[in-house]
Amino acid sequence: MNESGRVEAFSDGVFAIAITLLILEIKVPEAGENGGLWHALGEQWPSYAAYVVSFLVIGIMWVNHHQVFSYVARVDRALMFLNLLLLMVVAAIPWPTAMVAEYLREGKASHAAAAVYSLLMVAMALAFQAVWWHLTRTGHLFDSRVDVEGARRTRVRFALGSLAYPATVALSFVSAPLTLAAHGMLALYYGFNQVPVPVRAPDGVGAGAGEGEA
Amino acid sequence: MNESGRVEAFSDGVFAIAITLLILEIKVPEAGENGGLWHALGEQWPSYAAYVVSFLVIGIMWVNHHQVFSYVARVDRALMFLNLLLLMVVAAIPWPTAMVAEYLREGKASHAAAAVYSLLMVAMALAFQAVWWHLTRTGHLFDSRVDVEGARRTRVRFALGSLAYPATVALSFVSAPLTLAAHGMLALYYGFNQVPVPVRAPDGVGAGAGEGEA
Amino acid sequence: MNESGRVEAFSDGVFAIAITLLILEIKVPEAGENGGLWHALGEQWPSYAAYVVSFLVIGIMWVNHHQVFSYVARVDRALMFLNLLLLMVVAAIPWPTAMVAEYLREGKASHAAAAVYSLLMVAMALAFQAVWWHLTRTGHLFDSRVDVEGARRTRVRFALGSLAYPATVALSFVSAPLTLAAHGMLALYYGFNQVPVPVRAPDGVGAGAGEGEA
Amino acid sequence: MNESGRVEAFSDGVFAIAITLLILEIKVPEAGENGGLWHALGEQWPSYAAYVVSFLVIGIMWVNHHQVFSYVARVDRALMFLNLLLLMVVAAIPWPTAMVAEYLREGKASHAAAAVYSLLMVAMALAFQAVWWHLTRTGHLFDSRVDVEGARRTRVRFALGSLAYPATVALSFVSAPLTLAAHGMLALYYGFNQVPVPVRAPDGVGAGAGEGEA
Repeated sequence: MNESGRVEAFSDGVFAIAITLLILEIKVPEAGENGGLWHALGEQWPSYAAYVVSFLVIGIMWVNHHQVFSYVARVDRALMFLNLLLLMVVAAIPWPTAMVAEYLREGKASHAAAAVYSLLMVAMALAFQAVWWHLTRTGHLFDSRVDVEGARRTRVRFALGSLAYPATVALSFVSAPLTLAAHGMLALYYGFNQVPVPVRAPDGVGAGAGEGEA
Repeated sequence: MNESGRVEAFSDGVFAIAITLLILEIKVPEAGENGGLWHALGEQWPSYAAYVVSFLVIGIMWVNHHQVFSYVARVDRALMFLNLLLLMVVAAIPWPTAMVAEYLREGKASHAAAAVYSLLMVAMALAFQAVWWHLTRTGHLFDSRVDVEGARRTRVRFALGSLAYPATVALSFVSAPLTLAAHGMLALYYGFNQVPVPVRAPDGVGAGAGEGEA
Repeated sequence: MNESGRVEAFSDGVFAIAITLLILEIKVPEAGENGGLWHALGEQWPSYAAYVVSFLVIGIMWVNHHQVFSYVARVDRALMFLNLLLLMVVAAIPWPTAMVAEYLREGKASHAAAAVYSLLMVAMALAFQAVWWHLTRTGHLFDSRVDVEGARRTRVRFALGSLAYPATVALSFVSAPLTLAAHGMLALYYGFNQVPVPVRAPDGVGAGAGEGEA
Repeated sequence: MNESGRVEAFSDGVFAIAITLLILEIKVPEAGENGGLWHALGEQWPSYAAYVVSFLVIGIMWVNHHQVFSYVARVDRALMFLNLLLLMVVAAIPWPTAMVAEYLREGKASHAAAAVYSLLMVAMALAFQAVWWHLTRTGHLFDSRVDVEGARRTRVRFALGSLAYPATVALSFVSAPLTLAAHGMLALYYGFNQVPVPVRAPDGVGAGAGEGEA
């Protein structure tokens, strides 16, 4: 059955829509009396920064989501539900993005906005971890290429990698702009350093890493 | 012909867009003088609750829609039209979601908002029932796996299950927050307890339930 | 080459998004002092009517678009461009929908709003006609099932059917609510009475109509 | 692996959503006391012009994106990342579109708005060039039909073609309406004159241009 393909297509839709809705956060500025439109455009830099960072976050999350689901052959109710939780967090990202953009230079409020943004990233990491744990725990949802034992062993590395997100919550109370920059760098890092899905060696001798070109 | 696939893909698009538009309902709060942004964020809890419930409602409805359409091989005009009615209701959900969020603590208005939300859920259940009745009445739109007689017998169970929705309309006049919670629980219930599509036994001896892993 | 499939998938996306954006036109009403939220909800009936009519218009246009493209095997530059024009009109529908809803009871302005709505429908009919004329004129873009001569002969019927749209422009200056109702009825009419795509008889004796269940 | 198909489907989604969000830029006008709704509608012409031009820009960019990706068989991390950059620019287009529409008749501010619009087009051209350079430099990401040497030779022509975009930035400081018209004409030009992807001759004698009907 093509269960996995259906879930992927729906998830892709949500990722694509959430990433494209981010632009609604950037408003057309008022060309005030001092300096005109150029000045007003310059004043909006937090909106541009938040757009770029959230675009990377959702884009890279999409890449990783697909990387994992390309090894999934079957979908059970629990996986459907955990995936829905993950999408619920991803679809919410335009909201803290707009909030961080609005409050980035606002002292105390900037810390609150950055913390909410970071907490949403923690929630996203947890939901993605939950998907991975469920897949590796059950095993039989993977397609036949996957080395299930090897996949189970990646869980600790995977979880350790996610510890960076709670750290950004703490960073939020130091500096909101730094927190936003940290999320941009984390997205780039995960874009170029994924935990690979371990695949069986064709001859059964060892296990390779099924990341390939993706 | 790949009629069914086309209708499914279009429907998936509408589901994915409606579920992602829900976030537009949550506004960036004004950081007032009393308590700042954290306080303002806390005051917005009805928006978060409405977002989570409507996300579950649309997400689970999508799962059930696909469950049924995965057994549909042909699409006639009436099915096209009934499906369009269902999508018209699903696409409207962001509107009562925003309304419930805005009025959840507003006394009399909260009852009206919750009742409109519940009435939309009644409309969604009726449209989905209409799709199911049309499929089971005509029979020939199903693919060959489906036990049409068995499918007809599910109609009463299916209809009884939908009686919970009119009950939430009544509950709206008691308590809007309770009504919202009820819709969240109904979505979860239908997420884990679908009426299965009956399939033919391979050897023609009996009829099983074609739900499998989905 | 799978050219036609690519254009169809992109077009489907635009149809699905435009139809789902319609809900953004319906605002959460202000619960005024007189009569509360129920009264305010009742006052919004033009928004509901406009939502339902435009949903049907886009939904049925999608059905017809697919009906035609399911017989298209190749896409040339002109078809790509004409299809883009059609999508440009379809994607614009949420705007006159919101305008008709806002001005439906506003005397002179209601006529202007209804006329703009109707003019957009004229533009949509013209763009769809242009697609059909290009397909029947070139012939070689159809797949092999299509009876090209028969398809050419449908052009007059097809064009006559579209004369109803200019008539709604005239009707706009009589009554905006009647105009909206007329568009709803036209959508339903075209939903159940399409000009079929003529197909070759398998044995070459005669020509049938390739509409089937769709 | 179907890597290329996944990236294309996601990109299509972003293109389709960005093009459909353009309509949110056109507001329902206020029917003022002088001349009523018709007058107010006429006053909005910059919004219609900006809508049409940006619709063409995104639509033609989509055609060209697909033209190139239909020859891509494999996707590496760098291509994924460069494509994400391109989508980041495309998804941002609704914002300068709304800005150009709002300030088109506003003297100094019109120049700033047109310049930002043009700069985004420069960014889009650069991102698309980067995708093309990466594909031709690596070579092995193309499918077997592509004449890699021939593709490399197109890079200069491709780059020269993009010089029109920086010129529109200069034009912005002369006239914003002219700049908008120039972008419309550039989109049409690139719609009908693409740099073709060179393909191998089937017999290895020469190289043709793999544009065909698309």
